Amino acid sequence: MKLAVRLVDIAARGVLLHQQDAKTLGVFPGDRVVITNLSTGFSIADYVETTSTLIKQGKLGIYHQSNEQLQVKDGESVEVRVSDRPVSLDYIRKKMEGERLSREEIKMIVTDIVHDNLSPSEITAFVICSYINNLDIDEIESLTRSMVETGDRLEFHTGPIVDKHSIGGVPGNKITFLVVPIIAAAGLLIPKTSSRAITGAGGSADLMEVLAPVEFSAAEVQQMTQKAGGVIVWGGATNIAPADDKIIIQEYPFKIDQIGQMIASVMAKKFAVGADVVAIDIPVGKNCKVHSIPEGRKLAQSFIEIGDRLGMRVECALTYGDAPVGRAIGPALEVKEALAILEGSESPNSLIEKSTEIAGIALELAGKANRGEGSALALDLLKSGKALKKMKDIIAIQGGNPEITSDLVKLGEFFHIVKAERDGYVVDLNNKSLITIARVAGAPNDHGAGLYIHAKPGTRLKRGDPIFTLYAERKWRLEKALETARTLRPVIVEGMLMDRVPNQREWLPSKQRNNGVE
Amino acid sequence: MKLAVRLVDIAARGVLLHQQDAKTLGVFPGDRVVITNLSTGFSIADYVETTSTLIKQGKLGIYHQSNEQLQVKDGESVEVRVSDRPVSLDYIRKKMEGERLSREEIKMIVTDIVHDNLSPSEITAFVICSYINNLDIDEIESLTRSMVETGDRLEFHTGPIVDKHSIGGVPGNKITFLVVPIIAAAGLLIPKTSSRAITGAGGSADLMEVLAPVEFSAAEVQQMTQKAGGVIVWGGATNIAPADDKIIIQEYPFKIDQIGQMIASVMAKKFAVGADVVAIDIPVGKNCKVHSIPEGRKLAQSFIEIGDRLGMRVECALTYGDAPVGRAIGPALEVKEALAILEGSESPNSLIEKSTEIAGIALELAGKANRGEGSALALDLLKSGKALKKMKDIIAIQGGNPEITSDLVKLGEFFHIVKAERDGYVVDLNNKSLITIARVAGAPNDHGAGLYIHAKPGTRLKRGDPIFTLYAERKWRLEKALETARTLRPVIVEGMLMDRVPNQREWLPSKQRNNGVE
Repeated sequence: MKLAVRLVDIAARGVLLHQQDAKTLGVFPGDRVVITNLSTGFSIADYVETTSTLIKQGKLGIYHQSNEQLQVKDGESVEVRVSDRPVSLDYIRKKMEGERLSREEIKMIVTDIVHDNLSPSEITAFVICSYINNLDIDEIESLTRSMVETGDRLEFHTGPIVDKHSIGGVPGNKITFLVVPIIAAAGLLIPKTSSRAITGAGGSADLMEVLAPVEFSAAEVQQMTQKAGGVIVWGGATNIAPADDKIIIQEYPFKIDQIGQMIASVMAKKFAVGADVVAIDIPVGKNCKVHSIPEGRKLAQSFIEIGDRLGMRVECALTYGDAPVGRAIGPALEVKEALAILEGSESPNSLIEKSTEIAGIALELAGKANRGEGSALALDLLKSGKALKKMKDIIAIQGGNPEITSDLVKLGEFFHIVKAERDGYVVDLNNKSLITIARVAGAPNDHGAGLYIHAKPGTRLKRGDPIFTLYAERKWRLEKALETARTLRPVIVEGMLMDRVPNQREWLPSKQRNNGVE
Repeated sequence: MKLAVRLVDIAARGVLLHQQDAKTLGVFPGDRVVITNLSTGFSIADYVETTSTLIKQGKLGIYHQSNEQLQVKDGESVEVRVSDRPVSLDYIRKKMEGERLSREEIKMIVTDIVHDNLSPSEITAFVICSYINNLDIDEIESLTRSMVETGDRLEFHTGPIVDKHSIGGVPGNKITFLVVPIIAAAGLLIPKTSSRAITGAGGSADLMEVLAPVEFSAAEVQQMTQKAGGVIVWGGATNIAPADDKIIIQEYPFKIDQIGQMIASVMAKKFAVGADVVAIDIPVGKNCKVHSIPEGRKLAQSFIEIGDRLGMRVECALTYGDAPVGRAIGPALEVKEALAILEGSESPNSLIEKSTEIAGIALELAGKANRGEGSALALDLLKSGKALKKMKDIIAIQGGNPEITSDLVKLGEFFHIVKAERDGYVVDLNNKSLITIARVAGAPNDHGAGLYIHAKPGTRLKRGDPIFTLYAERKWRLEKALETARTLRPVIVEGMLMDRVPNQREWLPSKQRNNGVE
């Protein structure tokens, strides 16, 4: 059926049909149709909503996000037909039955995900059955390759190309802002694509946005990397491994992170940017994705195996994940902390040490340092100011202001210092609670929101000493975050006497006790 | 945040926020909010779409389906807040991990489904993990009870109350139209709630709609049953076990029918209408949900067990499911066939036999006939015309025209007779293809669409004899259905010589063969 387009200002995917046209087409609200742009031949699949007044008969309302892909103009004609059932549903069903999927079957599922031929519910089904029945190493390889093949790729003609990845779970992990300029300062290329936070207080892309734009096409990423040596961009804007975001978002409600999908997600992005060597940071800790060293080693082996199959040299570092890296949590606070180190600050040491270790692994893999000497080279590049210079090149090439310094980074104008209510020691920081509080304060969308930890575990505090400062861009958010902090108590301060075990025996007054003796 | 309502004529669930209000509230398109009707205190959870022009700041656009529940008027104020993460997501996660769910956990999941606190993707996750990890009999009981408790119920003060159910998968299964009036004619009450077709050519509710309205509240269903002895209504309109429809729709893309959920779905509806005795029809056949007699017996045992636990007497019949029941497929065609039998027609026999057997089981369970004598009583009630009289009472009480006769049922005005292209026997009917063709022709939404089978398996045909007649309400649908029929060939006609196996040996002219002998 041919219909005339009416662009509808609703920020969502979807199309709006007049009831009568829906009836003629034989579709109901919620059914899926295929819409073809007649000038380009490009088609998208989308869900129908119906109306009897907002759209006239003969017209097709197209919502904003759908038209970002379809690219039609008001009044233009499009062809609309009922969507066929995607064959990949049968492959998802097969996985539900516990069978292994072939490379072709996985490719079809990923292709349908990328082309929006599968609904969010249908992608959820794929996620859940992969989670329950697991993906074996061949399936992970297929998934990785399919994610690469269904998106854009970078092709550099020099090498080696370096990449790094942290699998997440630990707050304040801004090491990308040190590792990328260090690698670039060593004369290597590092086209780093990053994510935005889903559950965290800020992904590297959210952080970089404090300094410069982060949305670029794959071709732009390639050109910028060639010029500046490195970039820090948002992967979601590049069309690199575009299936990944659509899969991850379905895992979020259940707080699951299917190992095979995580490996494929990471490795597909590395492969698609043309990486030759990859350093992977696996934080281990009770609130991290990986809870023990043996578990971390097993995961590392899988990363290395997939790397080998795809021709990438991978090395993994298991890192301490029980406390935040550095002291800052939230985009502007973290960027300020990282910039200060590039400018020469010697603290926080945890951040410097972790960043140079990970950068060191990459430098060794890329042949810039002998085994065991990479982190020293990384520290040199940092101390010499070469990494700071590269960071400014990167900020400039992405369109930011290279004159920025850590002092100029703008934090939220509303803040409150949370103080110790008693003398004692900081005995525990709860990572999850810290992240929750930062999010309530507005992070990552309000860049200036977050918290700065004054007292890390082991610190001796007197009553009234600052524990952490909470920042927000809006007053009501600061108040709400403070309320949350009061409930969650993310930092536990205890005296040396941590508990008192009472004697349960019956107590008698001395007279009675001594009765008969005296 | 308080916002003024603007009703939006879009037939979907959802709310539309101005971008600025979304930002203040801290929500993005796709996030979930809770909207509270300030006059009634009633709340619903819904997904946000945003706009910068369609809705003014300070207003909240509410789509049609959302307001069916919320019941607010244009201009009224509502309270909008960000939705919390439903705790039932953790229970779904637990089931993913292969653990058993308690009654309270299942109750919470079902409650969140009914209140739209779980998204379609989240319900899919529950469906898939229940499918892969199975529900045990305790979980099925919990699911059944939870579905009952989260909806409306009927309470009759006389008894026994009868119900029947066919688990589906066989086309043309219009036995409800004979069983319900027969049971009512025996002086029993049978408040039959039915479904609309999801994958079939017509559910009983679609069929009944040819004769009378089918959408009533639970209270109306109860009153009508007390007056007429029986009803045939659409369960979806009653708010009886409302979780069920929302669960089933998520199974549809994968063509799965999780056994535990199916049992709970059936038994919850029976329990909620107050049934004391239930006859369940389990078609067995290669294209049915149940493929073998042992499988059918196992399923029957589960139905009986859940019935026992809930205090309902259940009996199951395994029935022949490899061919359509009767000859008609599609709402009007099926109703016409059933009415003709009520009026005294002696064919098709398969339909009469199946209906009286199932009705007979119910009559025996209800104490109206001795064991083994129920079907004879059912046949008596049919032949005597008492069932026809009851059917007219039922049509009348539901607001239809009781003067209707089989001759007056209106079929699609466009039809085409598909004829045998050669002499031979009907060797096979493909149920799935027949249903597909009926759906392409417009069934179940176009009531007059469908097909009538002249030649069932075993029939001897001459070239040009009619095989089936295809009906449609619209010419283009008839043409499309004919095209589909040509591709699918749902009825296979073969000569007695069904195939010819050629001799593959090399053939030599006789002269050469006899060479050297002659």
